[in-house]
Amino acid sequence: MITLKAVRLLSEVDVVAYPQVPGRESLARRIAASHLPDGVEELAFDVPMSVDRAPGQAAYDAAASRIAAHLDAGRSVAVLCEGDPLFYGSFMYLNARLAGRFSVEIVPGVTSVGAASARLGKGLIARDERLSVISATSPEADILAALNGSASVAILKVGRHLAKVKAAVSAAGLMDVASYVERASMAEEHVMPLSQAPETAPYFSMILIHKRGAAWS
Amino acid sequence: MITLKAVRLLSEVDVVAYPQVPGRESLARRIAASHLPDGVEELAFDVPMSVDRAPGQAAYDAAASRIAAHLDAGRSVAVLCEGDPLFYGSFMYLNARLAGRFSVEIVPGVTSVGAASARLGKGLIARDERLSVISATSPEADILAALNGSASVAILKVGRHLAKVKAAVSAAGLMDVASYVERASMAEEHVMPLSQAPETAPYFSMILIHKRGAAWS
Repeated sequence: MITLKAVRLLSEVDVVAYPQVPGRESLARRIAASHLPDGVEELAFDVPMSVDRAPGQAAYDAAASRIAAHLDAGRSVAVLCEGDPLFYGSFMYLNARLAGRFSVEIVPGVTSVGAASARLGKGLIARDERLSVISATSPEADILAALNGSASVAILKVGRHLAKVKAAVSAAGLMDVASYVERASMAEEHVMPLSQAPETAPYFSMILIHKRGAAWS
Repeated sequence: MITLKAVRLLSEVDVVAYPQVPGRESLARRIAASHLPDGVEELAFDVPMSVDRAPGQAAYDAAASRIAAHLDAGRSVAVLCEGDPLFYGSFMYLNARLAGRFSVEIVPGVTSVGAASARLGKGLIARDERLSVISATSPEADILAALNGSASVAILKVGRHLAKVKAAVSAAGLMDVASYVERASMAEEHVMPLSQAPETAPYFSMILIHKRGAAWS
């Protein structure tokens, strides 16, 4: 679900940079692999493994320095992102370090929320409805407030917060309209009612609540 | 910003359908024009001009019937959408009429919110923040509640509701962090601080509020 614009830019740049968790294959690179020109210079930068706390400043300082060195030498650099760069994307930390000194063009992408909704075939937002997107790392009271104040709610980064989120959804009386989506749009995608979700959820899982139930007609 | 997946599907289908306001060029068709196979059968269906009230049931009944006739005859049909089909998209009304009888695959797309954020270069959501998406057609109290309860807010379909939205943003004390984006990603795109927005806004305009101001670092 990469855009034509992203594919075109990848064919034009001198260097392709991407995040990797040390010791693991970069997911962003795997998604874009078939669109990297033969022999393009690659720059893999390490990002912290922890998903719940603020990422280490030092890791992004180091990545930004390596990218800046290429830019200072007159080379163009593309940074690969999963989903959309500004939607829970770690690219924001690089942008904060680079945008003041260099020209940065951000290419929007399809978010995991869009991919999960498409898979479920349920309308996300229509007419004068409100959609809330919130992280499962938020306090239960904040999740409950989002559930109570919105027609549709996407709760991302479920991981080890699944029990807390389930409790909030149950307290709001919304278990019947809650879906669980694991690894939206990936080969290992799983979709099921939240009531049937496994005991443990990966980081790349989300819960979608559609209060309106049936699609608008 | 069409996806490779959408381009591939367009090359494979028998019929390409798209909405049009009577007497005007279809925006969805214009965006996809260069990806339509030569000689593919086209099906333009009329949609109501009004943007604020619920669309006419009759128009979508008629469009669904015309699409169903092709499907019943064994032909595949692609329906063009602007942005994402499930994100304020009129495709939801067709889906409600067709999904029970036919196999429907929904292809997610880049939303206007993603396109506008990329243009502004401001992070939309990070860490444990909450993002709210709401329509400018909502009551001012609902818009104010979204502004008060979220780190980032996207207010869509501004049109003739600009004065009401400005009043809510001002009441929340957020005028300094509010941006106005007209026709995101189109050739006629305009971006400016909300405080400098024109007196009248088109339907395809939005207001984005980023409370955090500077990007996360």
